[in-house]
Amino acid sequence: MRAKPQTSVIHRVTRYDGSIGKSVDDVLVVEEPLEIRVAGESVAVTMRTPGADRALALGFLYGEGIIRKIGDVGRAEHCGRPGTPEYGNVIDVLPRPGEILDPERIRAGRRGTLTSSACGVCGREQIEDMMQRCQPIDDGRAVQAAMIFSAQDQMRQSQYVFAQTGGVHAAAAFSETGDMYCCFEDIGRHNAVDKVVGHLLETHNIVEGEGIQILAVSSRASFEIVQKAVVARIPVVVAVSAASSLAADLAQAMGITLIGFARDKRMVIYTGAVQ
Amino acid sequence: MRAKPQTSVIHRVTRYDGSIGKSVDDVLVVEEPLEIRVAGESVAVTMRTPGADRALALGFLYGEGIIRKIGDVGRAEHCGRPGTPEYGNVIDVLPRPGEILDPERIRAGRRGTLTSSACGVCGREQIEDMMQRCQPIDDGRAVQAAMIFSAQDQMRQSQYVFAQTGGVHAAAAFSETGDMYCCFEDIGRHNAVDKVVGHLLETHNIVEGEGIQILAVSSRASFEIVQKAVVARIPVVVAVSAASSLAADLAQAMGITLIGFARDKRMVIYTGAVQ
Repeated sequence: MRAKPQTSVIHRVTRYDGSIGKSVDDVLVVEEPLEIRVAGESVAVTMRTPGADRALALGFLYGEGIIRKIGDVGRAEHCGRPGTPEYGNVIDVLPRPGEILDPERIRAGRRGTLTSSACGVCGREQIEDMMQRCQPIDDGRAVQAAMIFSAQDQMRQSQYVFAQTGGVHAAAAFSETGDMYCCFEDIGRHNAVDKVVGHLLETHNIVEGEGIQILAVSSRASFEIVQKAVVARIPVVVAVSAASSLAADLAQAMGITLIGFARDKRMVIYTGAVQ
Repeated sequence: MRAKPQTSVIHRVTRYDGSIGKSVDDVLVVEEPLEIRVAGESVAVTMRTPGADRALALGFLYGEGIIRKIGDVGRAEHCGRPGTPEYGNVIDVLPRPGEILDPERIRAGRRGTLTSSACGVCGREQIEDMMQRCQPIDDGRAVQAAMIFSAQDQMRQSQYVFAQTGGVHAAAAFSETGDMYCCFEDIGRHNAVDKVVGHLLETHNIVEGEGIQILAVSSRASFEIVQKAVVARIPVVVAVSAASSLAADLAQAMGITLIGFARDKRMVIYTGAVQ
């Protein structure tokens, strides 16, 4: 049996409040590297909060186009010998017998990803690339405002690590009836979304037109967050903070309803309809 | 003459405030990819806010150990033909004649960086790696609390894009006397720090024991933020929000004073001394 992953640690700090410094125990979010391998080949190292590593790896590889369906995947497990310091920080995803997972499919557009574009990059091209890769999500339905606020409330109540540490992002998926399907926390906002997507993939919930309707994130909405929603066929993205120009442009092109600053019964609707 | 980089755009949004949705113009932070090349070879693509691209590229390459001193660098300029959509989104950094810049030096530990570690990764190893690469910063001085709060105030007053958009991070460098030396904003918190470090490198201000004393960030303090401060020889890191476990451990190992939740005359001191 594996031990429960450690998401927070006690750290002795000095609290300064006006003028007096007091030495107290504080709770810090755990940050540790995770190396993601595909059939033994290293494809990425991400700084993450331990826990749901399998979902994180699957969600990441799905977003990058390396995994196309859960049937592509065989085992996905931590490498090494339990008890060593490295154990738990490398996860290897193997193809299902008869399938091939090709890390060369890994996509550009992420900081640090090695790429070999001859003609350069621009946001418009990245949106066109997504349009070639995925169909727009033609949901055709307006999401209810009450469901947006309820989703935010449900996610906030599930941010257990944040409540302890104040140093971690969350992402959560909600059904058409507004019920929270899953919520994950991670020091990286991309990782939190990858954990959600990986979990949806594992539980066969990436199906257009039914199932999951809302992806909520505790952070801002950047291009890559909307991109992950498009790939996972989630029609509504709700962020606590602002959206970027490219996130709004991608949402517009792909039929995503994009909402920001969703708090205290207010929100900004960048694209799509809310009723 | 190059046009001033566009950091924000007008976007038509619907504001929902209680029950009524009003269509208004909003200001969004610009997010565009930047491809960083070294002597024509692509080493990274990062989503960034345009502006200070040269500083961003130099700071990134310095943090990764590809540039070791400003004397390694020759020209660094945007590729392509002005007026095309791609122009401004690829920057090529050339070695100074007689020098070699080796992208193979690029370091693991960043999400998406291709790596080939045989034995896996763990946070302790990443700290040991930094200790082999850099000497600890033995500053030996306690920073003044008033200077921390003043630094935060100065940075806040320089967050022009944030004031417009609410969707962008900042990083700033301060002298021993608490004067702000530079401040940069970017949609990515790592990018904002890279712009600061690149600017310090260009202006010959990466010198241990003198010059820059404080790196302030508008975000949380993760491992990579502290790592960048260590490489740039900045002894004090001040974050508006929480530090992670690995950031605190690295700060401890490298003699960095690490401060979080620095706001409203309060702060949490994770490592080092404040007087």
